[in-house]
Amino acid sequence: MNRKKRILSGMRPTGKLHLGHLVGALNNWVRLQDDYECLFMAADWHALMSEYKDPRRITENTLDNVIDWLSCGIDPAKSTLFVQSRVPEHLDLFLFFSCVTPLGLLERCPTYKEQLRELKTREINTYAFLGYPVLQAADILIYRAEVVPVGEDQLPHLELTREIGKRFNNLYGRVFPDPQAKLTEEPRLLGLDGRKMSKSYGNYIALSDSPETIAEKVKSMFTDPQRIKRNDPGTPEKCNVYAYYRMFAPGQAKEIEAECRKAGIGCTDCKRRLAGILTDFLAPIREKRAEYSAHPETVRSILAEGEKQARHLAAETREKVREVTGL
Amino acid sequence: MNRKKRILSGMRPTGKLHLGHLVGALNNWVRLQDDYECLFMAADWHALMSEYKDPRRITENTLDNVIDWLSCGIDPAKSTLFVQSRVPEHLDLFLFFSCVTPLGLLERCPTYKEQLRELKTREINTYAFLGYPVLQAADILIYRAEVVPVGEDQLPHLELTREIGKRFNNLYGRVFPDPQAKLTEEPRLLGLDGRKMSKSYGNYIALSDSPETIAEKVKSMFTDPQRIKRNDPGTPEKCNVYAYYRMFAPGQAKEIEAECRKAGIGCTDCKRRLAGILTDFLAPIREKRAEYSAHPETVRSILAEGEKQARHLAAETREKVREVTGL
Repeated sequence: MNRKKRILSGMRPTGKLHLGHLVGALNNWVRLQDDYECLFMAADWHALMSEYKDPRRITENTLDNVIDWLSCGIDPAKSTLFVQSRVPEHLDLFLFFSCVTPLGLLERCPTYKEQLRELKTREINTYAFLGYPVLQAADILIYRAEVVPVGEDQLPHLELTREIGKRFNNLYGRVFPDPQAKLTEEPRLLGLDGRKMSKSYGNYIALSDSPETIAEKVKSMFTDPQRIKRNDPGTPEKCNVYAYYRMFAPGQAKEIEAECRKAGIGCTDCKRRLAGILTDFLAPIREKRAEYSAHPETVRSILAEGEKQARHLAAETREKVREVTGL
Repeated sequence: MNRKKRILSGMRPTGKLHLGHLVGALNNWVRLQDDYECLFMAADWHALMSEYKDPRRITENTLDNVIDWLSCGIDPAKSTLFVQSRVPEHLDLFLFFSCVTPLGLLERCPTYKEQLRELKTREINTYAFLGYPVLQAADILIYRAEVVPVGEDQLPHLELTREIGKRFNNLYGRVFPDPQAKLTEEPRLLGLDGRKMSKSYGNYIALSDSPETIAEKVKSMFTDPQRIKRNDPGTPEKCNVYAYYRMFAPGQAKEIEAECRKAGIGCTDCKRRLAGILTDFLAPIREKRAEYSAHPETVRSILAEGEKQARHLAAETREKVREVTGL
């Protein structure tokens, strides 16, 4: 029997998780659990790199996000859940990697320049933020992960991880595998206003939203801009509400499409119905969230167990690093 | 009774310690022990930043340097001796500090640019090396050291430490003192060839050199370049050998000066006599070195005890950091 390949994936606890996280990453994590040895990490150090002005939120979000993971089907019996900052070996390897990483590699990283432009308000022109991908390399390689699920935009970072691992191996001796990308097809779920769903745009439906909040948010969704009056026929493919039907109630999408085109259903009714669908869709998650939220000690003990497992693996790697470097 | 102020000072274990270290730093450390609570650190992470291509040497040098410290009079009953990489709290605080340190502060640091020019062969244009002073700030402030003995050339680094500590205090709440520089007057001891005594120039007399090696090295010293023949009168103030007399045998310097001026003593004899003086001067250190070298377990247990003390202090600071940041 072949050993399962090891996967490391993480999320930065910078805010509440929303539908975009669910369809983009969490559902994928849930599927990966059976075929891989999975390590899922709350990357609180990485969160600190951009949210350092409000670190208390990171701690709150960490527990809240892990509750979401569990409620969406991440199973601590199958996977290891842990918090990055609780495993000091990450920083130790980060320092080794920092020593073998030329500045130019980081300065030229395309996502770096992009983020400096996009996150202007956060003053991230800091030493830590430049090293973001170096810490990522340490996160992945301290577990000698062989596979990393990434979206296309994250590929440059994985390339850096591979480059840094190779440099280390060449200098000191082979310790690290060459981790492979597992491209996640991200079903594109847009936010309420038609832009990318994102915490910073405030255009999301959180996994923790109440039915009332969901109803209110769906009511505010942008629809086909050319359908102005109730009796105007609509063009579903131009309507974000219709896109939600296709994703969350594909069995009802055909009917909605037909009704919209002949103005048989108005936007208000169409949205009310979608709110119901999303409320039902999120109901099992909401239920589990309520359970876990009432018993944070359960979540903490899951994280403590995960930390133990993660540290065990990390210590093995650290020992190999010591063998080849003497340090 | 006033609490003694706390001092943190360190050396990078990049090679053997030599007379320059002794008169420049170690003798000063020995004096500080009575008036301050002293922490003396072998900065192996900092050594790695420039010597990452040969890390095994760092581990060897660490033990060897600490043996020198002890042999020169650093007293583990008075001071805490420890190895930087054994106290993980340094890296933890390093990450916090990295998040609040603007890149520009580091890029503009005058010593940074200078070192990039000087150490061209070492390929230190790395991410780690740019962060050198950030780790220094963590070294100092994780112990909430109030005083830092520095040479004039190190003042910009201490300024960075103070700046980083202030930024942290302003953002999260006051945790760190504002450490003050204690300027060490470094008696300028030049190397055998008249340049700065330095490992990389190979122009030093190591504290561990045998009498034979000392004799050989002193023989190779540059003297007054205008005194060519035995009978030429010399100009002592232009002679590096004479400078050594003034430092290591001030009671004999007057005589040597007079003899040199009237060509009463030749350079060969003058050097032979200096070799004897240095051999005697280093004899007690050499003796203690031999003892400690024969019992490395004693040195290791001193370092283990120091590590315990250092970690205790570091953990206190880490707890304060957690209180104000929540992380």
